[in-house]
Amino acid sequence: MPTLKTFQVDLQPIGRRAEIQGTETLLAAAQSNGVDLVAICGGDGSCGACRVRLIDGELSALTSTEEYELSAADIAAGYRLACQARPQSDVRIDIPPASLTAPQRTQIEGQSIDVPIDPIVTPIDLQIDPPNLTDLRSDATRLSEALIQQTDPASIEYPVLADISDRLRAQNWTARAAVRRTAERPSIVALLPPQTRLLGLAVDIGTTKLAAYLIDLSNGETLARAGAMNPQIAYGEDVVSRIAYTNHQPEGRQILQRKLIDALNVIIGNLCAETDAAREQIVDAVVVGNTAMHHLFAGLPVQQLGTAPYLAAVSERLNVRARDVGLDIARGASIYLPPNIAGYVGADHVSMLLASGIDATSKTVIGLDIGTNTEIGLASGGRLLCCSCASGPAFEGAHIQDGMRAAPGAIERVQITDGEIRLQTIDHQPPIGICGSGILDAIAEMVVSGILNERGALQVDRPRVRLQNGKREFVLASPPSTGHGRDVVVTGQDVSEIQLAKAAIRVGFDTLLAEAGITCEALDEVIVAGAFGTYLDLGSAIRVGMFPNLPLSRFRQVGNAAGMGAKQMLISAERRKAAAEIARRVEYIELTTHKEFTHRFTNALHLG
Amino acid sequence: MPTLKTFQVDLQPIGRRAEIQGTETLLAAAQSNGVDLVAICGGDGSCGACRVRLIDGELSALTSTEEYELSAADIAAGYRLACQARPQSDVRIDIPPASLTAPQRTQIEGQSIDVPIDPIVTPIDLQIDPPNLTDLRSDATRLSEALIQQTDPASIEYPVLADISDRLRAQNWTARAAVRRTAERPSIVALLPPQTRLLGLAVDIGTTKLAAYLIDLSNGETLARAGAMNPQIAYGEDVVSRIAYTNHQPEGRQILQRKLIDALNVIIGNLCAETDAAREQIVDAVVVGNTAMHHLFAGLPVQQLGTAPYLAAVSERLNVRARDVGLDIARGASIYLPPNIAGYVGADHVSMLLASGIDATSKTVIGLDIGTNTEIGLASGGRLLCCSCASGPAFEGAHIQDGMRAAPGAIERVQITDGEIRLQTIDHQPPIGICGSGILDAIAEMVVSGILNERGALQVDRPRVRLQNGKREFVLASPPSTGHGRDVVVTGQDVSEIQLAKAAIRVGFDTLLAEAGITCEALDEVIVAGAFGTYLDLGSAIRVGMFPNLPLSRFRQVGNAAGMGAKQMLISAERRKAAAEIARRVEYIELTTHKEFTHRFTNALHLG
Repeated sequence: MPTLKTFQVDLQPIGRRAEIQGTETLLAAAQSNGVDLVAICGGDGSCGACRVRLIDGELSALTSTEEYELSAADIAAGYRLACQARPQSDVRIDIPPASLTAPQRTQIEGQSIDVPIDPIVTPIDLQIDPPNLTDLRSDATRLSEALIQQTDPASIEYPVLADISDRLRAQNWTARAAVRRTAERPSIVALLPPQTRLLGLAVDIGTTKLAAYLIDLSNGETLARAGAMNPQIAYGEDVVSRIAYTNHQPEGRQILQRKLIDALNVIIGNLCAETDAAREQIVDAVVVGNTAMHHLFAGLPVQQLGTAPYLAAVSERLNVRARDVGLDIARGASIYLPPNIAGYVGADHVSMLLASGIDATSKTVIGLDIGTNTEIGLASGGRLLCCSCASGPAFEGAHIQDGMRAAPGAIERVQITDGEIRLQTIDHQPPIGICGSGILDAIAEMVVSGILNERGALQVDRPRVRLQNGKREFVLASPPSTGHGRDVVVTGQDVSEIQLAKAAIRVGFDTLLAEAGITCEALDEVIVAGAFGTYLDLGSAIRVGMFPNLPLSRFRQVGNAAGMGAKQMLISAERRKAAAEIARRVEYIELTTHKEFTHRFTNALHLG
Repeated sequence: MPTLKTFQVDLQPIGRRAEIQGTETLLAAAQSNGVDLVAICGGDGSCGACRVRLIDGELSALTSTEEYELSAADIAAGYRLACQARPQSDVRIDIPPASLTAPQRTQIEGQSIDVPIDPIVTPIDLQIDPPNLTDLRSDATRLSEALIQQTDPASIEYPVLADISDRLRAQNWTARAAVRRTAERPSIVALLPPQTRLLGLAVDIGTTKLAAYLIDLSNGETLARAGAMNPQIAYGEDVVSRIAYTNHQPEGRQILQRKLIDALNVIIGNLCAETDAAREQIVDAVVVGNTAMHHLFAGLPVQQLGTAPYLAAVSERLNVRARDVGLDIARGASIYLPPNIAGYVGADHVSMLLASGIDATSKTVIGLDIGTNTEIGLASGGRLLCCSCASGPAFEGAHIQDGMRAAPGAIERVQITDGEIRLQTIDHQPPIGICGSGILDAIAEMVVSGILNERGALQVDRPRVRLQNGKREFVLASPPSTGHGRDVVVTGQDVSEIQLAKAAIRVGFDTLLAEAGITCEALDEVIVAGAFGTYLDLGSAIRVGMFPNLPLSRFRQVGNAAGMGAKQMLISAERRKAAAEIARRVEYIELTTHKEFTHRFTNALHLG
């Protein structure tokens, strides 16, 4: 019978202390105290990522899941899975860096194209008649009539009304009205002191990372930028496990929304502090993300996204009031969310297509944003096609034995020359694991040097290939050069994970080409977006067969294109229309029910 | 130095216990525990209404305010003012009925006129295509496309989107959409099971009383009605003291709004329980009130209403989202508030003019709604004039020594025949005080029988007229016939208060006639609305000179006309337009700056 006693959990080296009951797991203790442990599987023990080490005290007995996921050496050294272990006394726990989701290299830059400045919210400076005993018009009438001297009639957003009288008097009957154009009647979303600079916020919500930009709406200039982890990671690393969380946890959807909005509000505070701006100056916002992130941000249902046929609740472009979702910008502001295409092709893909100009090109261009889910778009002969590939989180370092995120100490480049291994790590720290670009390089180099064959089998006769618990693995780095005193290896299972991931992407690639009736040689350009897409080595990606063998000059790595698209839509009404037009035009190809899928996938598993 | 010790305050006969610090008053203790003491002045000691009696324990020393407001006999009997006295030990306090604001007779009925049924929110029953592997439209697209088979395209309110997927599946892809017509694009405000009855809520927010009606939008039938006290009374009995409260108390405006909305949500719960309806069935609402109540309901600024030139923050008609103010009806519903005319002529007057048909008549008609503030409207020769009179709360029983609200034990009718006094009390309880219609009767009868002269002086040679502390008073009732063992009297000061109140009304009356260039004989009809207006004796009102001496047949007492107007606007788009037209047409006459004001007021003070 579980005890209901409360124990103290001392989380090292972070030095945070949690009080939990003996029925709760160490993962729960960490999550409830803001310590973001990696929990790719959502906490059911299947990913083995939340490894922690017991320093002091007593934990519940090893579960069969732990016996399966942990090596004998790990168990001997005191390693446990935080999602499985429960305290039986006060305990002290060591969290290795690879089990923490932050800090991590995030990517907020992207190439931009020139967009004419034509924002939705524009300033109008007003002189308002002060009241007197013969002019008894209400404050709102006074404001409206001053406005129509200069522009069309506008309604006044409710939060602006709630503050109108104090504000007009405090500003001595002058104001800069922030007026938002809509398809219907324009509206005043903020009343600021005259000459106040109007700002906009562009946000890209990734499953893993958040990127936010503070923009001067008058000239499109980026005043400040910030990146952060998506705090929902503590509730599941991928979209599927987060949806599972909302299905099992009452108010789960609201919790995930709250966590996300809270994190964005912190970012907004930092952006404002950095630029000496007030939150109420942020009078417009554009938010992009995949369909699940879009829905969780906007407070929309996600359960139906998790079961076939994986439907979006809302695919149309959406204007949500900032106050309805709790985003802490001007209280009368709205947030624009571009349309989603399908359950697994979201507004971020629309934004990426927009920013990279794929929608408007006359060339034959393919663009892809590699992530846990990889969306691919193809422009060919006037058509616009897209699909979604379940590439999984392997390139984020998950499901890889020594995989980790792009954090200090992660191996990001691998070269194997005549049996000699050269490693490059992030921040030049001693290696403690491998991130996505590192594992891609490692496998490509292992194929070239014959350590792996084309089917992905490790060759036992090669140096550094060894058997461990009856399974083959390749040793990339060993103590004393490693940062944690253990080996960093690539296992046969790791190779399989990367094969599955790259095959998923390649199938999407090839299926779009086939649907358009062209071959890869017809491609004028391949645009690779996103953080991993920017850091990956194109040669390695071609060598493992993730990309077709085209001249490197046809590839373009563009950084955070989704974020750039959000910025464009923030400063240009025309760009919003173009985004809606992309969503209207694009033909969505469902891969998993495609007749060629199994055949193509099996072929694509080959390395090289 | 005040002590910071905490004491227990035992409030009898209610039996409620409060814990307060010795620095806080008994009034604060009562208010924070939901005991609504009369506090006409907002708690500064000037009204003397919050009389309580110490039973046990020790209170702070008498203040000079208390020495002024309380008689020596009262002080000897242990009476104190709750707004002045602070506990020095645990205390037990007796609250006399006259010091409590509830229960009280409220009035929710009104005469109605026939209005064609044409509500703003109408039902559309939908069959929606269920999804399948070849139909991947989003849930929102699916709903929108089912809707445009039957009517114009509509947007979907955010709270409806937030629930759309679960609801469509739970209702097996059928729904009754509640569609709201607006000047712009229509919107879906609720998705209900097919055939669900759509309901509307009409609310009249009086300074003192709330009246609410639950209406079937398909036929205009009133399904249930409820009246309650306006809980803001605990923070000041009239508009001016409540505005003063918001000026002095941080978050005071939010507190008053919250109190009001909470009370309305309780009423809505009761109305729903009575009719076996769900709150989400209430898909539309119309709220009327004077400008201050309108603003406090809607969360608008009121400070500028409290100082010259007494401006409304908003005079235009207003559609407020139910979720923005926290009214617990369908989450996507809006609330319609008709226009205000001026700072002291609100949406309730517009509603009253609408319901009584004064706007559309070809006759010469005057209509008035008597309250703490009395609004008067006049239709004459195609013009529509209105004004506001500061008649004060005397007719609510305030500022009258033995005044009380229309609660059990209140004297409501007085006859003096040959020196014999006949009294009628509410619920036939032994008299404990006098309500508005009682004091009006008493003074009219005292004039007729020579106890008062025309200038309002009590005649000392008459029976039952006596000197008390050097001041004249007339004894209406004495123990043992009274309910509280004390005399019920009419003092000279009471007479003055009624003179001021009725003179204020008469000046408004006469000023509007003069502005229209007519005399009172030209009036075809005098419409008297509101609770006091319905219960008052017309003969008494004419005898004291509140109304001109016209045949009684020209008067019509119509009950809660403001509430009736709200009902009309709920079921008819045309009536909303008519209300806006009234506000546009009406000429507001400011009395206090009118050149004839002082002259007219002095004349109107005369009794008879």
